[in-house]
Amino acid sequence: MRVDKDLAFILQFENVAWFEDGVVRILDRRIYPMETEYVVCHTHHDVVKAIQDMVTQSGGPYLAASMGMVLAAHECKIKNLDKKETIAFMREAADAIANARPTTSSRMKNIVDQSYAKVIENDWHNHDALIELVKEYAIEEVSGRYSRIEKMGEQLATKVPKGGTVMTQCFAETIVGMLCRHLKLQGKEDVKFITPETRPYLQGARLTASVINDMGFDVHVITDNMPGYIMKEKKVDLFTSASDMITQDGHVINKVGTFQIAVLAHYHGIPYYVTGAPSTIHKDLETIEIEERDHNDVLTHLGKKATMDGVKAYYPAFDITPPQFCSGVITEKGIFSPFDLDSYFK
Amino acid sequence: MRVDKDLAFILQFENVAWFEDGVVRILDRRIYPMETEYVVCHTHHDVVKAIQDMVTQSGGPYLAASMGMVLAAHECKIKNLDKKETIAFMREAADAIANARPTTSSRMKNIVDQSYAKVIENDWHNHDALIELVKEYAIEEVSGRYSRIEKMGEQLATKVPKGGTVMTQCFAETIVGMLCRHLKLQGKEDVKFITPETRPYLQGARLTASVINDMGFDVHVITDNMPGYIMKEKKVDLFTSASDMITQDGHVINKVGTFQIAVLAHYHGIPYYVTGAPSTIHKDLETIEIEERDHNDVLTHLGKKATMDGVKAYYPAFDITPPQFCSGVITEKGIFSPFDLDSYFK
Repeated sequence: MRVDKDLAFILQFENVAWFEDGVVRILDRRIYPMETEYVVCHTHHDVVKAIQDMVTQSGGPYLAASMGMVLAAHECKIKNLDKKETIAFMREAADAIANARPTTSSRMKNIVDQSYAKVIENDWHNHDALIELVKEYAIEEVSGRYSRIEKMGEQLATKVPKGGTVMTQCFAETIVGMLCRHLKLQGKEDVKFITPETRPYLQGARLTASVINDMGFDVHVITDNMPGYIMKEKKVDLFTSASDMITQDGHVINKVGTFQIAVLAHYHGIPYYVTGAPSTIHKDLETIEIEERDHNDVLTHLGKKATMDGVKAYYPAFDITPPQFCSGVITEKGIFSPFDLDSYFK
Repeated sequence: MRVDKDLAFILQFENVAWFEDGVVRILDRRIYPMETEYVVCHTHHDVVKAIQDMVTQSGGPYLAASMGMVLAAHECKIKNLDKKETIAFMREAADAIANARPTTSSRMKNIVDQSYAKVIENDWHNHDALIELVKEYAIEEVSGRYSRIEKMGEQLATKVPKGGTVMTQCFAETIVGMLCRHLKLQGKEDVKFITPETRPYLQGARLTASVINDMGFDVHVITDNMPGYIMKEKKVDLFTSASDMITQDGHVINKVGTFQIAVLAHYHGIPYYVTGAPSTIHKDLETIEIEERDHNDVLTHLGKKATMDGVKAYYPAFDITPPQFCSGVITEKGIFSPFDLDSYFK
């Protein structure tokens, strides 16, 4: 049985990123749920571009990356490359995909490098076998990821009181589905969710709220200037977010807004749990680069400009939450203090 | 010389709310600067509805209220009411306008009561004289308000270092224009501004940024999930907001978002100055009611829905910042500690 069974629509593999019939189809999360459309990629360069254009986000780019490698193998077949040329092509594809976005590059690199390892470690005799091999890895990788996330979702669910209220920032993706699955298994169908909308991409309003609604739970959206006030007024029990990166010294890099909600949760005495494994690469903030995204996104709302000519904008995609504002790092191995992530690697 | 001379377009009296030719025209701040349109009110009930519909906001409703009284006087003329009937009609109009919105009702009541006082204290012989009398009061009231605000703007400007960066929330309206006027007079044309967009009405992106741009200063808009991160990254020197209400015990009631930015400014060691006089009526929070607004505004962006059916929303219009997060209350009489507002009344 596939691990994504009975999860919300956009958490099903085919609705994240999927190779079939010579193309990779990526659900366009920029316009969901207003429209349900897929960006069709004919080459791995199209996949890189789709990742850069934020067609998908959160965990989406990882499946897009591994499926992009399947597409690269398909390109080798179309180009009729010999084995040596195929290996060189796959290496270049892996590098191109790994570097699509700076903040997520270390996890992305890990995935495409393992995909590439399949190419060189296995004895494949034709491109169809190669495609199958690399697609098998993609499904295995995403299934493994979903299963690890399920362990986090299960632990997170134990921290939520029956009838309680959870605030979650941006789109923690699979973790949201798994949290809902395990809240049900624990008899907590009455838990309520509050999701800040997460401008400018609106992950909270569009994606998180849709997943929670799909999973059958009560969900209220708020604007991003409300969490500090609402978490007290509506008696939030727990704040949680996923992470684009957790450094080994306990700094959480996640969608901009996480930091300020974490500080406010701390002020109100509400625990903040981050989900995700600490980075195997980034010891501290020294090697972290925060992307600046297209300023025009801040000046527009669903494509409509709201500002006078001459008005500028800033758009840092992520922010950094220091460990003192994080109550626990929920990993597939258990819950760790952000100051004790060494224990995770032991 | 009128006190609004050389201020930004939307701070000119005629572009706030203005009685002329038997109607009150109110600039529609809901769609500015994308469109520059006026809502035309033919009765004081239209003015009440416009205030309730948030056609105008911040200081706008106060001028709309006093101009609404002029319109009521005009209605008495059209209805050909006698003196006694006119006085009764004006009393009813004053009550209707005063209660248009709960949070601003005390200031609003003060304005329409003074307008009504003109009606009963003065010896007017026909409705034209009454109209002139009440309009004179409206202009006098708004001019007095602008002049008091100018004193606040001047003091606030002294707190901004040359070349410094100011963050301001929502739309502090006239204070923004007066701050800019006095920054120039103090030789600080190089000051930069950062304005959180202030969803869902976008006062920051649409109104504040437009005024600052009109006044010739550098301005960057950010989304409401960025202030905590940006105020450190861009080295903000000062956070400031206006107030819908300051209780006598130092709680600031202002557009939702003010509280969380104040907490974050406090965390970063950045001063937060609120402008506005303490309430003559509200001693503490006991008598304060926070309006809940139309939830649909949270679920839509410039009229376009972003959420799946079934997803709900919260929309508290204001929040409450406790005095420990406020560095000073800037009034027309000087700067006071929020814990020492008794001194303001001495």
